[in-house]
Amino acid sequence: MKNQIIKPKTLKGFRDFLPQVMMPREAIMETARRIYRSYGYAPIDTPTLEHLEILTGKGSEETDRQMYHFIDHGKRAVGMRFDLTVPLARFAAQHIEQLGTPFKRYHIANVWRGENTQAGRYREFAQCDFDTIGTTSIASDVECVLVINDLLRAIGFQAFTIRINNRKVLNGLLEKFELRDKSTEVLRAIDKFEKAGREKVVAEIKACGGTEAQIDQILELVAIKGRPSHVLERLGELAQGNDLAELGFSQLSELCGLVKQAGVSEENFSIDPSIARGLDYYTGVVFETSLDDDPGIGSICSGGRYDNLAELYTKRELPGVGASLGLDRLLAAMERLGMIPAVSTPADVMILQFDGQYLGHYLAMASELRKAGLGVEVYPDAKKAGQQFKYADKRGFQACIVAGETEVESQTVQLKWLQDGVQTEVDVSQGTTALVNALRQRIDKS
Amino acid sequence: MKNQIIKPKTLKGFRDFLPQVMMPREAIMETARRIYRSYGYAPIDTPTLEHLEILTGKGSEETDRQMYHFIDHGKRAVGMRFDLTVPLARFAAQHIEQLGTPFKRYHIANVWRGENTQAGRYREFAQCDFDTIGTTSIASDVECVLVINDLLRAIGFQAFTIRINNRKVLNGLLEKFELRDKSTEVLRAIDKFEKAGREKVVAEIKACGGTEAQIDQILELVAIKGRPSHVLERLGELAQGNDLAELGFSQLSELCGLVKQAGVSEENFSIDPSIARGLDYYTGVVFETSLDDDPGIGSICSGGRYDNLAELYTKRELPGVGASLGLDRLLAAMERLGMIPAVSTPADVMILQFDGQYLGHYLAMASELRKAGLGVEVYPDAKKAGQQFKYADKRGFQACIVAGETEVESQTVQLKWLQDGVQTEVDVSQGTTALVNALRQRIDKS
Repeated sequence: MKNQIIKPKTLKGFRDFLPQVMMPREAIMETARRIYRSYGYAPIDTPTLEHLEILTGKGSEETDRQMYHFIDHGKRAVGMRFDLTVPLARFAAQHIEQLGTPFKRYHIANVWRGENTQAGRYREFAQCDFDTIGTTSIASDVECVLVINDLLRAIGFQAFTIRINNRKVLNGLLEKFELRDKSTEVLRAIDKFEKAGREKVVAEIKACGGTEAQIDQILELVAIKGRPSHVLERLGELAQGNDLAELGFSQLSELCGLVKQAGVSEENFSIDPSIARGLDYYTGVVFETSLDDDPGIGSICSGGRYDNLAELYTKRELPGVGASLGLDRLLAAMERLGMIPAVSTPADVMILQFDGQYLGHYLAMASELRKAGLGVEVYPDAKKAGQQFKYADKRGFQACIVAGETEVESQTVQLKWLQDGVQTEVDVSQGTTALVNALRQRIDKS
Repeated sequence: MKNQIIKPKTLKGFRDFLPQVMMPREAIMETARRIYRSYGYAPIDTPTLEHLEILTGKGSEETDRQMYHFIDHGKRAVGMRFDLTVPLARFAAQHIEQLGTPFKRYHIANVWRGENTQAGRYREFAQCDFDTIGTTSIASDVECVLVINDLLRAIGFQAFTIRINNRKVLNGLLEKFELRDKSTEVLRAIDKFEKAGREKVVAEIKACGGTEAQIDQILELVAIKGRPSHVLERLGELAQGNDLAELGFSQLSELCGLVKQAGVSEENFSIDPSIARGLDYYTGVVFETSLDDDPGIGSICSGGRYDNLAELYTKRELPGVGASLGLDRLLAAMERLGMIPAVSTPADVMILQFDGQYLGHYLAMASELRKAGLGVEVYPDAKKAGQQFKYADKRGFQACIVAGETEVESQTVQLKWLQDGVQTEVDVSQGTTALVNALRQRIDKS
C-alpha cells in the first residue's frame, strides 16, 4: 500500500503561492506593516477558530451560510473567522480595560469564506486591516486617508484616487424626506443605478414612499462629481435644513481641509457622494480607493467610521474608524500593470560551486557578503557550470560569482551579470570589500 | 434580543496576541524572513485546509487524532494542516517540474493541533520552516547550521549551542549488530535514558536482541560528550567496520569543518550523538539548538536531512534538508530572560493634540517626521495634556512633542523625553530637520 500514490492537489477555491507570487505578496504585507506602524497602529492577532456564537452574533444570512464551522474535539461548536472585524469586536470587548483608549491596531491575517469560486474569488484570503477605536475624533478619520496615501505610494503607485464620502449627508437627506427607516432599501436601489438604469431606481425609491422631487434630490446628491470645492458647494446646498446632513457636510469639509494640510496631493483624493460602503455598518466618513490605471479592479482599500464596534459583546460603547487593504485585488492589478518581476529568488547573487573542493571557500565568501547585507545563494552541487548558470537565470539572480582553481590561487573572482553577460574580474585578496562595492553598484540601481 | 450580550472569550487552547507580545513576535518572524532570504530561500504559502487524505497520508495515529477535520460545504472531507512538512511534500509533488531543483523555500504559517492544552501548549501555533529539496549535497546541510547561527544572532542571542548529529552513525551501528529493523524500538528505549535509567534501557534493547557488549557500545555512542575533535575521534572508532556508520562519521567530520570555515564560532556548535529527532523521518544530519541561558526550554530550532520528502504524492525522489524555528518556545525564553520590552506601540514619538485648533499643524508635522523614517502618532483628541502624557507613558512612547499657541507662533516645539523627563525647545522655523536630528540622537541609541 505504501506505493499507492495520493494525487497531490489543492481544494477547490484554495491555492498555493509559488515564490514568484509570494515574494511581492510578502513585500506588500511588509510595506503595510511598516506604514501602519509609522502611525502608531500596533499589531494584534486573534485565533483562527472562535466559538461559533461569537462569529454568528452579527452575521448576515450570507456570511453564516459561507462560514466554515464544525464541532471540535471537545464537542464545542466552532467556526473559522470570515473577516477581521468580528474578531476585533470580540477582542476589544474582552481586553479594552487593559488596552485603554484610544486603541490603534492593525491585523494582517487570513479569513475563510466557503463562497462561490467564480470570478477569481478564493475561499481563503488575507485581509490587512487597521482601525482606531475608542474615539470619535476627526483626527483618526484623517489618518485613515493619510495611511492609504502613504501605503499606495510606498507600494509604488502614484495614480490613485481615495474617494471620500460621509454617510451622514445622505442619511440626513433621507431623514428630511422621512425615508430614514427605508435607508437600506433606498441604498440598495441606488446601488443598482449603473446596472439597471435610472427608471428602475426611481420606481424602487417611489415604492419606499419617496416623491419625484425627493428622488431627484437623492439622485442628484449621489451623482455630484468634480473638484472637491465644487462637490462641497453642491453638497452644502443639498444638506441644508437637516442637522445630520449639515453635520456630515461640515465633517467632510473639515476632513478635506486637514487631509490637504497634512500633505496629500489633490490628485489623490476626491469627494464622491455615491459611495455608501455597506448598508448599515458605517455611520460617518467612508472611503474607497481606485487605481486610475485600472479602475475596473474596484476599490483596493476601503473603510469608514462606525458608531459602536462591539455592542454584541460589551455594553461599553466603542466608536471607531478604519480601513482594509485588499491584498488580492491589489496584486491582481499589479500583475496586469506589469509591476511583478519574473523573479523567484529573494537573493540577488549566486556563487557557483565551480569546483567542489572549494566549497568551504564559497561558503565563507557567501557569509562575508551576507554580513554586508547582500542576499547570496551558494549552488549546492558541483555540477557543470552551464547547468548552474541556467538555474541562476531561471530563478532570476542578478549576478553570479565564479571562482575556480585559477581564481582561488590568484585571490580573485569572476563577477558575471546575467542580464547583459558583462563579466569582470574582482580582486578579493584584501577581503570582500571590493566585491561588495562592485555588487552594490549595480544591484542598488536595478 | 439585540441587547443580550455574548460573553467575549477565546476557545480553550487558543489565545489573543496583544500588542506587547505581538510586536516581538512579528519582529522575530521578520528577522527569520530576512535571514532565510539572505540564503536564497524563497517564500511559499499553502492552504490552511487540505483534502483530508493528503493530511492523513503520512500521519501517525497521534496526529490523526489531534487533527481538526470536518466535512465542508461541498461534502468534501477536509482538515486543517497540523505541520508545514506534509503541505510542503504535497506542494513539491505538485509543482516540482515547474519549480526545478534545487528548490529552497521557507514557510512561516500557523498550524493546528487539538492536543491536550497542559504545559503551555496551544492548539494554534506558528512554524517557521526552511528547507532545501532536490539535492543530497552537504552544502545544504551546512547552510542549515549557518542559518540557525545567523538567525539567533540577529534575534539577539550569543549564548546558544547548535547540536549536530548524523543518524547514519547509529543506524550503521545497529546494522552491524543486526538490529537495524528494530531501530525504532532501540531509539525509543534510548530516549527513556534520562527518565527511566540505564537498567530499564538495557532491558528493552536486550528484548530487541542486542547483546550486553552491543548495548554497551550503543549507550557509549549516544553518551559521548566533549569538544568536537574528541567526539569525532570516539565516533570514528565506533563507526569502524560498517559502511553506513563510516559514511555518517565522514559526513559529520566534513560538516563540522565546513561550518567552522564558514565562520560559525566553535562556542556555538557541538556534536551530540544523543540527538535522534524523530524515529524514522530523518536519515542523515540532524540538528537541535539550545539556549545556554535557558537550557530547560528545550530545542528552539531543530531539523535534519531526509531521503524522500514526497513519496506519498509522487514517484519522483526528493531528498532534502531543513529546520524549523520554534517561535513560541523562543518567545517564552526571551520573556524569561527579560528580552521583551514593556512597550505596546510601534511608534517612538507622540505629538500631543495640545490645542484642537492646531490639529492640521500637528498632522502636517507628523507627516514630515514620518518622511524622515520616524514612527509618529498624533493623539486623536484635544484632551488635557496630563491625560495625553499618561497615555504616552502607558504605551511606551519615548518622546512627546508639545506645541501650543506660544510654540506655534514662535515656530518652535517642546520636545520631552518620557524616560527621564528631559525637555528641550526645538526650532522648527526652517522645517523639521533640527527636530528629526534631536529625535534621532536619542531614539537610535535606546
